[in-house]
Amino acid sequence: MTQPSPSRFPVPSIETMPEDIRVRLLAVQEKSGFIPNVFLTLAFRPDEFRAFFAYHDALMERDGGLTKAEREMIVVATSSANQCQYCVIAHGAILRIRAKNPQIADQIAVNYRKADVTPRQRAMLDFAMKVSQEAHLVSEQDFTELAAHGFDQDDIWDIAAISAFFALSNRMANVTAMRPNDEFYLMGRLPK
Amino acid sequence: MTQPSPSRFPVPSIETMPEDIRVRLLAVQEKSGFIPNVFLTLAFRPDEFRAFFAYHDALMERDGGLTKAEREMIVVATSSANQCQYCVIAHGAILRIRAKNPQIADQIAVNYRKADVTPRQRAMLDFAMKVSQEAHLVSEQDFTELAAHGFDQDDIWDIAAISAFFALSNRMANVTAMRPNDEFYLMGRLPK
Amino acid sequence: MTQPSPSRFPVPSIETMPEDIRVRLLAVQEKSGFIPNVFLTLAFRPDEFRAFFAYHDALMERDGGLTKAEREMIVVATSSANQCQYCVIAHGAILRIRAKNPQIADQIAVNYRKADVTPRQRAMLDFAMKVSQEAHLVSEQDFTELAAHGFDQDDIWDIAAISAFFALSNRMANVTAMRPNDEFYLMGRLPK
Amino acid sequence: MTQPSPSRFPVPSIETMPEDIRVRLLAVQEKSGFIPNVFLTLAFRPDEFRAFFAYHDALMERDGGLTKAEREMIVVATSSANQCQYCVIAHGAILRIRAKNPQIADQIAVNYRKADVTPRQRAMLDFAMKVSQEAHLVSEQDFTELAAHGFDQDDIWDIAAISAFFALSNRMANVTAMRPNDEFYLMGRLPK
Amino acid sequence: MTQPSPSRFPVPSIETMPEDIRVRLLAVQEKSGFIPNVFLTLAFRPDEFRAFFAYHDALMERDGGLTKAEREMIVVATSSANQCQYCVIAHGAILRIRAKNPQIADQIAVNYRKADVTPRQRAMLDFAMKVSQEAHLVSEQDFTELAAHGFDQDDIWDIAAISAFFALSNRMANVTAMRPNDEFYLMGRLPK
Amino acid sequence: MTQPSPSRFPVPSIETMPEDIRVRLLAVQEKSGFIPNVFLTLAFRPDEFRAFFAYHDALMERDGGLTKAEREMIVVATSSANQCQYCVIAHGAILRIRAKNPQIADQIAVNYRKADVTPRQRAMLDFAMKVSQEAHLVSEQDFTELAAHGFDQDDIWDIAAISAFFALSNRMANVTAMRPNDEFYLMGRLPK
Repeated sequence: MTQPSPSRFPVPSIETMPEDIRVRLLAVQEKSGFIPNVFLTLAFRPDEFRAFFAYHDALMERDGGLTKAEREMIVVATSSANQCQYCVIAHGAILRIRAKNPQIADQIAVNYRKADVTPRQRAMLDFAMKVSQEAHLVSEQDFTELAAHGFDQDDIWDIAAISAFFALSNRMANVTAMRPNDEFYLMGRLPK
Repeated sequence: MTQPSPSRFPVPSIETMPEDIRVRLLAVQEKSGFIPNVFLTLAFRPDEFRAFFAYHDALMERDGGLTKAEREMIVVATSSANQCQYCVIAHGAILRIRAKNPQIADQIAVNYRKADVTPRQRAMLDFAMKVSQEAHLVSEQDFTELAAHGFDQDDIWDIAAISAFFALSNRMANVTAMRPNDEFYLMGRLPK
Repeated sequence: MTQPSPSRFPVPSIETMPEDIRVRLLAVQEKSGFIPNVFLTLAFRPDEFRAFFAYHDALMERDGGLTKAEREMIVVATSSANQCQYCVIAHGAILRIRAKNPQIADQIAVNYRKADVTPRQRAMLDFAMKVSQEAHLVSEQDFTELAAHGFDQDDIWDIAAISAFFALSNRMANVTAMRPNDEFYLMGRLPK
Repeated sequence: MTQPSPSRFPVPSIETMPEDIRVRLLAVQEKSGFIPNVFLTLAFRPDEFRAFFAYHDALMERDGGLTKAEREMIVVATSSANQCQYCVIAHGAILRIRAKNPQIADQIAVNYRKADVTPRQRAMLDFAMKVSQEAHLVSEQDFTELAAHGFDQDDIWDIAAISAFFALSNRMANVTAMRPNDEFYLMGRLPK
Repeated sequence: MTQPSPSRFPVPSIETMPEDIRVRLLAVQEKSGFIPNVFLTLAFRPDEFRAFFAYHDALMERDGGLTKAEREMIVVATSSANQCQYCVIAHGAILRIRAKNPQIADQIAVNYRKADVTPRQRAMLDFAMKVSQEAHLVSEQDFTELAAHGFDQDDIWDIAAISAFFALSNRMANVTAMRPNDEFYLMGRLPK
Repeated sequence: MTQPSPSRFPVPSIETMPEDIRVRLLAVQEKSGFIPNVFLTLAFRPDEFRAFFAYHDALMERDGGLTKAEREMIVVATSSANQCQYCVIAHGAILRIRAKNPQIADQIAVNYRKADVTPRQRAMLDFAMKVSQEAHLVSEQDFTELAAHGFDQDDIWDIAAISAFFALSNRMANVTAMRPNDEFYLMGRLPK
């Protein structure tokens, strides 16, 4: 059986990629045991690849009021609303690992309002979804409600920026028919 | 830690349930190793419980042109559109088992248009989603297109009726905050 | 002129129907003077027919905090939102009779927010419509608001279950192109 | 029991209305046996009243390729989509009379796609609904399709203009809570 | 290069128009230096032309609690929601002139919630948009909120009626592909 | 009068910005005569600033099958659908300049289907809007239709990526209440 393609666009061979991109891919492969298809897909355009991952890391690896698991919750909730298969399945795996919770990703993907989250996380997700789906309605009242849950200005920017970044990411994944790697489906589901 | 409740409505104790319902629950428990929360939730109303499962079995256990895995595909796709946590997670498990495919349920739940299904299954899901989300637009042209994929009259009724039945089921699960049992999350994900 | 068909699916002749279904149809005909097309349409599938009417009767004939007219209000409001011709016209007739009010069904069908209902009935219909159209948003606040209007737990289940059941029924009627019987149009419009 | 008000805005007494408006109201009353509430409601603003009825009559009384019944079909279909109680109930009555068909108004109000109309009338209603609900999408292809059903340029203008005029009318009726007169509910339902 | 047509429907020559319509067009031309295409487009139907402008003037030239600039704000906000090119561009020009503000029209057209308007104007536009987009939801609470901003009964009628009138106007402009005159684009953008 | 703020988040003073960012801002100011507020707003987060503009330039300054004016058309059309005031007004100015057409930006912002664009540009905008508003529906048929208009694989990636990037940008601008600079309103409207 042939391997399904990571993307409907051409995927350059690793050998022909620019040095910095090849290094990054090999580092990811070393760490994870496989190369997530988002790296292969976006390597079609090296400059966009670099900007994409610089943006991604600035948002997802940042220290601040949101935990890394909470950042992944935002990704899963908004990517599900945008019906992005790659993002929900890949970031669902990361969320399970970061939250050390094998159920939370599936719960959030289907209906975050029924998920096992704290009231503070619920407020975070409500705002992230508003930014994702109807940002033109965001108003000062949203900021007031978030502040009441202890989110400061930097946290609010983080929530909004993660939601906005995955608005981009979800659209690229849907257009490129980016395929989730097989490895993601089971990651974080079994006790270590 | 307290066990989360299967439902926001009262759940009768198994001992006090009517005989026929108790027997059914114990049989399910015997077979599956646990009692899915839909049984406990709906036992709040014995007459509705009986009608619900009679309807369910008439549609899901029926022989006909649709395989059992295909019937579950319809459930997962439409329940995801309705953001029904219980139905997507529980029937996702059943779909994985019946299709002997650990990935198909997650793919369909996020975006069935990108899932590994045949063109015939895709047509089936398109129609099921139309019945689920905008049945008032169903027209003769839908029947013609389904016939072109080899679906006969009984198959079309089945697709529509499963989609319609889970329109009911999804709403009850959302209103009762029916909780997916822990067992469902991992079922069908590991090779036997 | 030929009689329009009750359904786009085949309708079995009464003589060939299973005994229990034939008996039910003849009883309805005896009482009403005609056989509503929902009976003829669903007889295409005897097991589903039995489950459907068992469910229907469990919800619509039940004693409890909702009057029978109020139960029909829920059917008319939600069926209109789903653009179900059979359900609005047939249950509109039943509502007129049960409410002894020749105007209420038309008012609710077009815009229940402008209908001659009590504030309690308005709250009931608001919740029924939420269950019908966006059940994934139902939250504890809805239960609190309903309780403030005097609805207890059983009443709330009833409202939700009737709305959910007609989500199923509306979809089947739209797919089968179930035709309202001529008799329904005038029923309950003239003083006795 | 007090009579429900025709409008949530003040209704001037007929004696104090400008002469031309009073004359029109008395003429309507003479012909119909009652004064439809749209006349009483809009008399709050004499200049708008005059423009409204001049526009209405130019569209609804015009000779041309559309029958008077067909013009009323457009009103009922689009007013139902806009959930305008006054317009659906009042023009439903007029449609029954003009079409000499006691069922057509209810059928169109609930789901015009299932109503007993000709293919030409179906195309007319499809276009009227597009103008009513998403006029920004109207394109040359719509004109081509209408021409294929024999509608000429004047007919197309008529369909669009009636749909557009009732976009105005529906909004005014909803804001003023314009109440359908009791007389409309039964008009055209009984054989003469 | 040929001049683009003002309308996809035939435009009568000014010489052949009825006297009163010709006089009005020449007066507009005298005053503005050009004939706005809405006059040429609607002259296709003289009776509708007369009613349209009588209605327009009754609403837009009326004295009352709303300034003329505020009336134009309503037109621009609701016409943008309806994606009406003619109305946004033509009335955007008039708004700039009446408000003596070269930015306000563009701000309102894109997102009135972010425009430089007073809280009272914001409440006015919120209500106008509700009438424009979901008038069936207008309720007594809307009237209470408007009253809190100092709008009296006549003001509320004005807001609603302007929004409703342009619901008609937007639809006619979209169907006729009414083209904004070149003159509108720059009007009111430069200091006098 | 106080100057309105470029953003609801703090804007660092240019002196305290990291060297590379300060240099970029001064270069923009030198070239344009002012600093567009997007630079000031995003300087709140230097790493995100760098990634944002690297991404932006990779897409908007790229050589390829789309002209620079066409790239801006995509920005204006999708930003208008997302009700992003900053993006429509700022990129509307750039579009006018790049297309040497003072009308095109306003036409596209209100309803791109009625704008003076070629059929090829119309197909480009239809696809950009689909990516922007419902990317989960993108399918092979879209690629086929674009190919028929002469768009190759790189062009299609460009259309999608610009639409996706401004999905991010529009959300950030709406959340930060990013204010269009006064200079943008008139740019490109007057003959040079």
